[in-house]
Amino acid sequence: MGIRLSELVDILGGTLTGNGSVEVVGIAPLSDAGPTHLTFLSNPKLRAHASSSKAAGLILAPADDAQIDASFSGARIVTSHPYAYFARAAQLFAARSAVPRLPGIHPSACIDATASIDPSAIIGPQVVIEAGAVVGAGCQVDAGCFIGAHAVLGAQTHFYPRVSFLADCHIGQRGIVASGAVIGADGFGFANEGGVWIKIPQTGGVRIGDDVDIGANTTIDRGALADTIIEDGVKLDNQIQIGHNCRIGAHTAMAGCVGVAGSATIGKYCTFGGAAMVLGHLNIADHVHISSGSLVTRSILEPGQYTGFYPLAKNAAWEKSAAIVRHLPSLREKMRALEKNLQSLTEDVKK
Amino acid sequence: MGIRLSELVDILGGTLTGNGSVEVVGIAPLSDAGPTHLTFLSNPKLRAHASSSKAAGLILAPADDAQIDASFSGARIVTSHPYAYFARAAQLFAARSAVPRLPGIHPSACIDATASIDPSAIIGPQVVIEAGAVVGAGCQVDAGCFIGAHAVLGAQTHFYPRVSFLADCHIGQRGIVASGAVIGADGFGFANEGGVWIKIPQTGGVRIGDDVDIGANTTIDRGALADTIIEDGVKLDNQIQIGHNCRIGAHTAMAGCVGVAGSATIGKYCTFGGAAMVLGHLNIADHVHISSGSLVTRSILEPGQYTGFYPLAKNAAWEKSAAIVRHLPSLREKMRALEKNLQSLTEDVKK
Amino acid sequence: MGIRLSELVDILGGTLTGNGSVEVVGIAPLSDAGPTHLTFLSNPKLRAHASSSKAAGLILAPADDAQIDASFSGARIVTSHPYAYFARAAQLFAARSAVPRLPGIHPSACIDATASIDPSAIIGPQVVIEAGAVVGAGCQVDAGCFIGAHAVLGAQTHFYPRVSFLADCHIGQRGIVASGAVIGADGFGFANEGGVWIKIPQTGGVRIGDDVDIGANTTIDRGALADTIIEDGVKLDNQIQIGHNCRIGAHTAMAGCVGVAGSATIGKYCTFGGAAMVLGHLNIADHVHISSGSLVTRSILEPGQYTGFYPLAKNAAWEKSAAIVRHLPSLREKMRALEKNLQSLTEDVKK
Repeated sequence: MGIRLSELVDILGGTLTGNGSVEVVGIAPLSDAGPTHLTFLSNPKLRAHASSSKAAGLILAPADDAQIDASFSGARIVTSHPYAYFARAAQLFAARSAVPRLPGIHPSACIDATASIDPSAIIGPQVVIEAGAVVGAGCQVDAGCFIGAHAVLGAQTHFYPRVSFLADCHIGQRGIVASGAVIGADGFGFANEGGVWIKIPQTGGVRIGDDVDIGANTTIDRGALADTIIEDGVKLDNQIQIGHNCRIGAHTAMAGCVGVAGSATIGKYCTFGGAAMVLGHLNIADHVHISSGSLVTRSILEPGQYTGFYPLAKNAAWEKSAAIVRHLPSLREKMRALEKNLQSLTEDVKK
Repeated sequence: MGIRLSELVDILGGTLTGNGSVEVVGIAPLSDAGPTHLTFLSNPKLRAHASSSKAAGLILAPADDAQIDASFSGARIVTSHPYAYFARAAQLFAARSAVPRLPGIHPSACIDATASIDPSAIIGPQVVIEAGAVVGAGCQVDAGCFIGAHAVLGAQTHFYPRVSFLADCHIGQRGIVASGAVIGADGFGFANEGGVWIKIPQTGGVRIGDDVDIGANTTIDRGALADTIIEDGVKLDNQIQIGHNCRIGAHTAMAGCVGVAGSATIGKYCTFGGAAMVLGHLNIADHVHISSGSLVTRSILEPGQYTGFYPLAKNAAWEKSAAIVRHLPSLREKMRALEKNLQSLTEDVKK
Repeated sequence: MGIRLSELVDILGGTLTGNGSVEVVGIAPLSDAGPTHLTFLSNPKLRAHASSSKAAGLILAPADDAQIDASFSGARIVTSHPYAYFARAAQLFAARSAVPRLPGIHPSACIDATASIDPSAIIGPQVVIEAGAVVGAGCQVDAGCFIGAHAVLGAQTHFYPRVSFLADCHIGQRGIVASGAVIGADGFGFANEGGVWIKIPQTGGVRIGDDVDIGANTTIDRGALADTIIEDGVKLDNQIQIGHNCRIGAHTAMAGCVGVAGSATIGKYCTFGGAAMVLGHLNIADHVHISSGSLVTRSILEPGQYTGFYPLAKNAAWEKSAAIVRHLPSLREKMRALEKNLQSLTEDVKK
């Protein structure tokens, strides 16, 4: 199961210094790595730890390589992005240690005769695939997944157990969808007539690009008339809710419990901290970063970091400050009165 | 698949002006509608768009009808609630284009011999229905749903794939439950003894009225002793959590990610913005509207709109204001001292 | 189905006064209990209700027993923790009224030949259990659950329908996992290279102790390299998200919709109100209590109650106070200027 450092560099690139014939069996963090491990230095502050590491090999950046103490006796792989290199090396180890599964359809799966399943795909037990759906080459659809009519999975996409991927939804290549995710449920659209809600049919779909990851129990609603769009490279953590007709720009990442209301358009390369929320029909520019726990109530047209949450305190201190928050308007009134009175007194005195 | 405007008005009502024999194939928004579409004007600000629309037919209110420019050459359907009319018309088109499914039970479903399934119901693949459960006329239970012992589904209710509807729960007629929803999990009830939590069995059920929609991955817990109640016409979006023994009043609507803690009683015709939270054992009156991201910490006895979230700002600005929030009590102290000192100085001067 | 009070005391302890041969069929709250019920007094404020209760038996603490009015004619069970006693008595009634299920594997389940299922376990319809998994004595795995390769369930653990328990995850004895929970999905780990996210394989597992309850649609991610740890006696409500490599200390309880970001370490005996959020890599001491809706942005080293949410108000009042929050820095500046000007004027006057 081991791999020689020279082989690794042949596959992933980087400049190797030292003994390339050493075999490593896996990756470990600086503090834990032993003589059969590869490790990595992605933070210059940890140079001292790197120097004393027992690892067989160290992935590091040129600037660190120039500085690292000679006491590190293992091999070095120099690359401009050590953390990305680590990720790719870890993928390589994971792929080599994965138990291979044979292509084919488990006999307990219910596949409509008009669905098109690539012969290289793996369809697990109790999967249901409805009419006209398409499952591409090398896909893996795990136990208990549901794929609705005319849904499409691009090549090499992996659905973990018990994903619901409803009719007419599309996902591109190399997607990863975690257990319990629901893609293509009806958007929340109603007309109100005298207090009673009348459902507006949701006849759009969900279109998801390539290299998109969708977390466990995350939900992405289908569009009302047009589609909900998730562009290439988007990464969604668990328990996220994306409303109907949203567009999430390429390479945007959202941490757990984020919510995006309907028809919001979010730019590319954005990040959202956990439990951040975006109201409907807003526009968020590219390269916007929203802090955890913050509610976005207006469109954001400039890149940057935005925040809005009440700071945590001991409960007794919070109670005191929160009680005053309500009285801020009167506090400001008093301030203005003071200013005026002081001004007037000053004039009296100076006269 | 088309429908004549005159037929539409026969079914849905409204006053038709113009050529009723024109056939329309679907509904489109004002900006996109072409000569085979019906469109609607629900916002008077868009009158100019309506006038220039190419749609075959326009749904609009009497006040707009009186004002609309003669340049709109299509037919008009005048009705007091154009948006609700649009919703009903869209339902009609959706029903006509739906692929009909035959009643019956998929051979892979596991149905207890004592369950009662109406012969007009459609039971999908790998559905499990336990002892004594009742599935009413015209119900559709999609792939992989679980219906526990003695649970009851009223007529025409639709469960999307992979709903969990546990023992003894009831839902009325025309309900729609989205994928991944869990109705009837145990409420979160424990007694604490010396730091250790002792589970309190949750022996109540969940009773859901007619015309209730429940979103994807939403959870509604069963009651501890009595039932959790969801009244008629309630609409719940995705990822909502309703605790045990709550009562949600008729026609109340909640957007995604809302949480309601146990034993809260919420009135009729309320609305909750996304991620709003309600603490346990509170009472919320009818016609209360809670803004997104707001935490309800006390009962609300008066109708109205209530809000409580920290406003979003650029991170640097937020840091400055948030740092002062903690010092509000001392800020107020200083203000009071200033007032006193100024008063005293003023008296000195005036003497 | 009834039980004599004397039998109950034999099983659960406590001191019985009065007629132990009375049979009770269940537990009811003070207000509802009739002559076939047991009831309990856990709050001294309700003594008057207890006195007038028609219950056959009353569980209460010694201090209340000494005070209770002679008008209560039923039997009394005196115990130091009446609420915990109530919980255990309710468990006893629930166990007696449960419909017994026979051990065995439903014929529709797909069990890998190398999985080890204790003969006393109950495996429901359409369960999937993969290679090398272990299901202990007395476990109940309900319909549609997925148990991944080499996963382990300790004795007497109960999975409700449609749990996803992925490869290599472990749960101890007497665990209860509600429907829709996903244990062991990949953690959210990526390296960013030029704006593009590169997945870091998540090769750790999830280790869950004994007596842990996990709510409906709650998600617990597997670790990146090491495991995510949930210690004994932890109670998690619905819709909770626990990130990779977290450790949740024993007997900590979290209400619905809580989120904990990756690598947070939370102590023992903590409580988290609904929708509280914890950022990643933080340390929370034992006996820390976080209020609902509060965002924990720094480590907490001292026990106590911590809070941070914007107080709810009528929307118009909120708008006024929220508008000033942004101007707190200038408000403080003005305050300082006033102090200085007043000081200077005072000196002028006193000269």
